[in-house]
Amino acid sequence: MNCSTLGIGLAGFGTVGSGVWNTLQRNGVLITDRTGGSVELAVTGILVRDPAKARATAGDVPQDLFTTDWRSLVGNPAVDIVVELIGGTTDAFELVAAALRAKKPVVTGNKALLAERGTELFALSKEMATPIHFEAAVAGGIPIIRSVQDSFVGNRLHSLVGIINGTSNYILQRMTEAGLDYPPALGEAQALGYAEADPALDVNGWDAAHKAILLATLAYGFSIDPEKVHVAGIEQVRPIDIAFAKQLGYVVKLLAVIREHADGAIELRVQPSFIPKNHILASVNGVFNAISVVGDAVGEALFYGRGAGQDPTASSVVADLVEAARALRHTAGHRGFLPYRDSGTLLPVEETETAYYVRFDVTDRPGVIAEVAKILAESGIGISGTHSPVNPEAPDAEFVDMVFLLHTCKFGKLQAALAQVEALDCINSAPVVFRIEKL
Amino acid sequence: MNCSTLGIGLAGFGTVGSGVWNTLQRNGVLITDRTGGSVELAVTGILVRDPAKARATAGDVPQDLFTTDWRSLVGNPAVDIVVELIGGTTDAFELVAAALRAKKPVVTGNKALLAERGTELFALSKEMATPIHFEAAVAGGIPIIRSVQDSFVGNRLHSLVGIINGTSNYILQRMTEAGLDYPPALGEAQALGYAEADPALDVNGWDAAHKAILLATLAYGFSIDPEKVHVAGIEQVRPIDIAFAKQLGYVVKLLAVIREHADGAIELRVQPSFIPKNHILASVNGVFNAISVVGDAVGEALFYGRGAGQDPTASSVVADLVEAARALRHTAGHRGFLPYRDSGTLLPVEETETAYYVRFDVTDRPGVIAEVAKILAESGIGISGTHSPVNPEAPDAEFVDMVFLLHTCKFGKLQAALAQVEALDCINSAPVVFRIEKL
Ligand SMILES: NC(=O)c1ccc[n+]([C@@H]2O[C@H](COP(=O)([O-])OP(=O)(O)OC[C@H]3O[C@@H](n4cnc5c(N)ncnc54)[C@H](OP(=O)(O)O)[C@@H]3O)[C@@H](O)[C@H]2O)c1
Ligand SMILES: NC(=O)c1ccc[n+]([C@@H]2O[C@H](COP(=O)([O-])OP(=O)(O)OC[C@H]3O[C@@H](n4cnc5c(N)ncnc54)[C@H](OP(=O)(O)O)[C@@H]3O)[C@@H](O)[C@H]2O)c1
Repeated sequence: MNCSTLGIGLAGFGTVGSGVWNTLQRNGVLITDRTGGSVELAVTGILVRDPAKARATAGDVPQDLFTTDWRSLVGNPAVDIVVELIGGTTDAFELVAAALRAKKPVVTGNKALLAERGTELFALSKEMATPIHFEAAVAGGIPIIRSVQDSFVGNRLHSLVGIINGTSNYILQRMTEAGLDYPPALGEAQALGYAEADPALDVNGWDAAHKAILLATLAYGFSIDPEKVHVAGIEQVRPIDIAFAKQLGYVVKLLAVIREHADGAIELRVQPSFIPKNHILASVNGVFNAISVVGDAVGEALFYGRGAGQDPTASSVVADLVEAARALRHTAGHRGFLPYRDSGTLLPVEETETAYYVRFDVTDRPGVIAEVAKILAESGIGISGTHSPVNPEAPDAEFVDMVFLLHTCKFGKLQAALAQVEALDCINSAPVVFRIEKL
Repeated sequence: MNCSTLGIGLAGFGTVGSGVWNTLQRNGVLITDRTGGSVELAVTGILVRDPAKARATAGDVPQDLFTTDWRSLVGNPAVDIVVELIGGTTDAFELVAAALRAKKPVVTGNKALLAERGTELFALSKEMATPIHFEAAVAGGIPIIRSVQDSFVGNRLHSLVGIINGTSNYILQRMTEAGLDYPPALGEAQALGYAEADPALDVNGWDAAHKAILLATLAYGFSIDPEKVHVAGIEQVRPIDIAFAKQLGYVVKLLAVIREHADGAIELRVQPSFIPKNHILASVNGVFNAISVVGDAVGEALFYGRGAGQDPTASSVVADLVEAARALRHTAGHRGFLPYRDSGTLLPVEETETAYYVRFDVTDRPGVIAEVAKILAESGIGISGTHSPVNPEAPDAEFVDMVFLLHTCKFGKLQAALAQVEALDCINSAPVVFRIEKL
């Protein structure tokens, strides 16, 4: 451990906590490179309830990292930054407050904690001049917190509207697609691991409400009393209303709506809502999240991605860790952007591979297709289709367009084959080539 | 000007430069509030070619701010941060280099400069420990630079694929929708102000390529020689290929593709490509931009928004200004997130307004609709439609579902009316209400 290494205390080693461990194991060197060598992160303590539990993680976790006593984790002099991923609002509160009091920056994914008891914790954060980072608390891997906090800092924000609970979204989608009633759709989500054994907060709207409260507090700068927020979940949604919605051109989504009114009052509500079926939010399916932000300068910006899960959530935790580490190392000031390696390899365009659309302008005589196809075959390029529409205004035209759809191959190989094709006397001009992208 | 005010030197006061001025005029106080009072920004110098030119800006711009000599702007002791928005790669290079040498952080929106001459400038930035910020250089108001640099710092990035030139996207869309040939579609874009008088860099693919080079350099950490990048623009795209694409289930988009291969080689190319018409990128229309990023932890994340224009671009410049200012003020370390005002007003849910879907479970007898409609009318709530499908399995059922679609009104008013409706003896249970969101 060199002098620039920062020690991470991982409080919680469940879904997200072990995902953070895995990400640091896998990409730790890359992170250090990207930060110009200024940030090296090492896990120096792990808090769990049961240290004997078998855990599936990348590489072995030294047993002596584990503790069951949060005080010893926070107090550990080798711990510089505390990551709270135990969940809940009681032990988690004590632990976060203790870390702040010890002037150890906190990274957390706990929206319930911050929405319910954030007022106290943010006041303590201010008093101790020690930050709380919480990108992972809202919309998993989507960088919505940083965007609202930093990227849109110059905007008056008119609205933030989003689908921010993947479990509910999955259940509503299954009710819509398969006409399922709520209980079997929930059962399916549980079987797939998309809903917890106790899915209450997901389906009663409060998980989304906690996230919306955090977004609104960021956007409008004041603490919001959860009791004043209008929250409805999806438990009461019946297939009949989903069916009627469809007939009327709508889709039912659990929507969080945050909006500033002209008089400065903030509208904040979470409920299943009808949205037009052609709106981009209507096509957010499965466990994905999406948030549309409208600002007075930026206009509409939309973010889409995985709203939960081990790796996406770990991505956000690690981003916060790096930010906290930079601040501790005072490197924020001279960061900017610096390439971190002297050189790398660009793939020559001849080596790139896609499928292709190729159009030839040909003189229509018997055997043209066969001649072209022969050259392609000899070059080892597969044809997935041909298309040579007859011009209805000139069905007997001598010059026609002939389209080949080609299987994936290297661009260089295609170029060589096309050079041969072009030399045929029935080909009248350079072939037109478009790549067909597999997205 | 208090002691915490930082002076901004605006080099360039055209589309983007004056947008930055307007944004700071409009939202300067909000920015200071949001940064806990730590960041106050004031424009202390403006570089233009012609100070006498009439300029449409918010509020008057004091004439003594203007200069035509970039050396005097950079050297001005009242200028702490230099914003380069003059464009080009010659004067802009000199100016940025001089600012870095003077240890003044630089904010720029100039992708041509950074893609063509970034190697020199980033080396100088490192040497002088002075950052260059360039969120505005890629995709206007979309926070893609910050996301790649900070939010995804823990990810190995598999790919970045995007539509990052709005002008080309608009032209291709018009060619697709209206079957226009390229020259008239370009003319339309120019008439609407979407394409410059000299649209060369937009339509020949190089504007997108410059942005892609910056993204790739950020993602993979090494400088990329523009000469090695495969770039094709939209000038050669013909309506026939767009029509064939449509027949085959594709849409033609100018796509920037960046991808890391297993051996570490980076694929980087820009060209008009066929993409499946159901892919989310296929529905990115007009001057909007979208970028899909795939990382090993975050999975797929997609960003969508305005890729250019005065205000969206200014939004990104201002975000960078605040970041630079924070670093100069050393507030990054104790930022975290702090609510900046003691209280605000939450709009009571009764005051929120949307349109509604209301379903009643009624006993079907003559006059039911009239009775409900009367109560709604007396409450001043407009009906936009009714829907009461007959159950084909029981066309004479006594109990039926009756749906009313209601015009926008306050939720409190709706609740009061529904209480009256519920009291009717033909209504068998509490009405089911969904909001219809205007998005
Ligand atoms: N899962 C997601 O996709 C996701 C996404 C975003 C945010 N989050 C948030 O992240 C947090 C963690 O979620 P998770 O899914 O990772 O939870 P989890 O899988 O249940 O893991 C919780 C971990 O915390 C430990 N723990 C719990 N209470 C403890 C206590 N009082 N003392 C010591 N250790 C304790 C557990 O120890 P044992 O291992 O010994 O049981 C376990 O390692 C929550 O706030 C959640 O809302 C989760
Ligand atoms: N427009 C967009 O939507 C957009 C979006 C993203 C990034 N950008 C980038 O932002 C930069 C500026 O774009 P823009 O659209 O704002 O350009 P613009 O409207 O043409 O404005 C350029 C400004 O710079 C001044 N200027 C130009 N050359 C100068 C020189 N040599 N010395 C002194 N002043 C000089 C001009 O002075 P006068 O006013 O006296 O002529 C004008 O105020 C470019 O790098 C562009 O690529 C633009």
